[in-house]
Amino acid sequence: MTGEDSGADTGDTLATAGEFVVIDRLVAGRRQAGAVTLGPGDDAAVVTAGDGRTVVSTDMLVQDRHFRLDWSAPRDVGRKAIAQNAADIEAMGGRATAFVVAFGAPADTSVAAATELTDGLWAEAALLDASIAGGDLVRAPLWVLSVTVLGDLGGRAPVRRSGARPGDTVAVTGELGRSAAGHALYEHGVDGPAGFAELRRRHLTPQPPYGQGVVAADAGATAMTDVSDGLLADLGHIATASGAGIDLDGSSFDGDRRAVAEAAAAVGGDPWDWVLGGGEDHALVATFPGAPPPGWRAVGRVVDGPVAVLVDGAPWAGNPGWQSFD
Amino acid sequence: MTGEDSGADTGDTLATAGEFVVIDRLVAGRRQAGAVTLGPGDDAAVVTAGDGRTVVSTDMLVQDRHFRLDWSAPRDVGRKAIAQNAADIEAMGGRATAFVVAFGAPADTSVAAATELTDGLWAEAALLDASIAGGDLVRAPLWVLSVTVLGDLGGRAPVRRSGARPGDTVAVTGELGRSAAGHALYEHGVDGPAGFAELRRRHLTPQPPYGQGVVAADAGATAMTDVSDGLLADLGHIATASGAGIDLDGSSFDGDRRAVAEAAAAVGGDPWDWVLGGGEDHALVATFPGAPPPGWRAVGRVVDGPVAVLVDGAPWAGNPGWQSFD
Repeated sequence: MTGEDSGADTGDTLATAGEFVVIDRLVAGRRQAGAVTLGPGDDAAVVTAGDGRTVVSTDMLVQDRHFRLDWSAPRDVGRKAIAQNAADIEAMGGRATAFVVAFGAPADTSVAAATELTDGLWAEAALLDASIAGGDLVRAPLWVLSVTVLGDLGGRAPVRRSGARPGDTVAVTGELGRSAAGHALYEHGVDGPAGFAELRRRHLTPQPPYGQGVVAADAGATAMTDVSDGLLADLGHIATASGAGIDLDGSSFDGDRRAVAEAAAAVGGDPWDWVLGGGEDHALVATFPGAPPPGWRAVGRVVDGPVAVLVDGAPWAGNPGWQSFD
Repeated sequence: MTGEDSGADTGDTLATAGEFVVIDRLVAGRRQAGAVTLGPGDDAAVVTAGDGRTVVSTDMLVQDRHFRLDWSAPRDVGRKAIAQNAADIEAMGGRATAFVVAFGAPADTSVAAATELTDGLWAEAALLDASIAGGDLVRAPLWVLSVTVLGDLGGRAPVRRSGARPGDTVAVTGELGRSAAGHALYEHGVDGPAGFAELRRRHLTPQPPYGQGVVAADAGATAMTDVSDGLLADLGHIATASGAGIDLDGSSFDGDRRAVAEAAAAVGGDPWDWVLGGGEDHALVATFPGAPPPGWRAVGRVVDGPVAVLVDGAPWAGNPGWQSFD
């Protein structure tokens, strides 16, 4: 929404403006993606499903659990919510086409903050040529953002977690450990050099490797997931679903460790924990019968052993990854 | 999920059992609908879109705003969340095929309560031959349930709010005023005769007229919506979108008024306010160029006048309907 179109009064809150006026302001002037044949303003939206199937996933972000408004600007929250949902579609070998967004917030939330959040949703969706097709706006005691993504498999079979086979190469595309490093820098209140600002930014707005899900599917990926809970935890899901072991080559993560080493030293953290156990970067990890495609780096191998994820042949004793109810 | 399959320990909470164990328990033994070709357990689900389009809508329910756990059992909350989302698809002339559900709850929520909620989701979805294709489970300081429904238009054009034309008949199917009556009975702590129990039940679990959205579309409905905020408020959306006036025949609601009259007397309420202003029954209201189809009752007419909803030719001075940020 542009400032000219919004008609928003400075200082308006969701309560003083009212639900329907706010929704009108949030949707005014937005341009829907080609797949959205009917956008906001009716009881439901209509989204084209190119090959007769829709891939769908949903994620809820809760204030002070998944984001903090003293760290994240509203725009960052919007971008992160779209990114983490889109990554789930990438992880199936698909492409996000449209999102619906339910937003709960206190009555005294400013219309300006809701608009910034919406700008973030749209900005991130635009990176995918997707759009926000509809939503809901309700009163809640804190910010809760629930996003559902619809995607298109383009005629491909979905790449599941269960297809990894002994001998397959395990490969990664995207960043590891940056979000965890940024989180630690925030927690410790460490500003530091310019590189730290970039790590903090990655924590607020992850950058999934958009488009690489389709690349992996086209290259014959046998299993894939996105790194949302931590590489070892997420590979654990693939190992379990596939009934196979995974052995990672520790040296293949040297670049990731170097990228966060200075920050780790500054806060007394362990780069290994962040790289192998840190979630929310939304990198993609997949298994391939042969060499991984360009843009992917080999990090290990699927082995014919018990269901486990090993590093250089041994169990990992560090941070096991994110748990929702810790 | 049946008790035999769950393996749930009595007294387990979301925190003691852990996210992934709880999710395993909640999805175990559930049978997906035919449209769901890949259900829970991967990064995303896959749902068939019969005619190459997906109708999609989302609604968020927040504890103490949209439901109270001292009034509603967890099963009721689940049923209500599915019903109100499904009604949005009915209102487009479609049929719900699958739902994804994000659930936020405190760490000390019992696994038993989460299971009952899930049972309610599945029970209501079963009325539609639909199923829960996926979801998210996160920690939140109170219960927040965010449901997204996917639906199928079966090759029909979506019935929008904007197609009402002067001379069209306005018609309703489903109940009006019952949910508002039940809410008032709860608020006033009035038990009363057996009929009151039914009204209270309707407040907890609305019964949308499933299947009638497709009936209306096939009968040539020019505009349609579901009654979520109150009949006058929701018809106001049709009037605005269509650029037309609507004049209701007050006597056509005599049956609805009689159904809630005794409850109104018991709490000092106004049956008119409940019937014309009460939301959450999720009846359907539509406009038809000719007589409405069987199962629908005519309640008024679209008129060539200013955008307004009148009752017997005059503005309505009572309850204007639900506002999200009141």
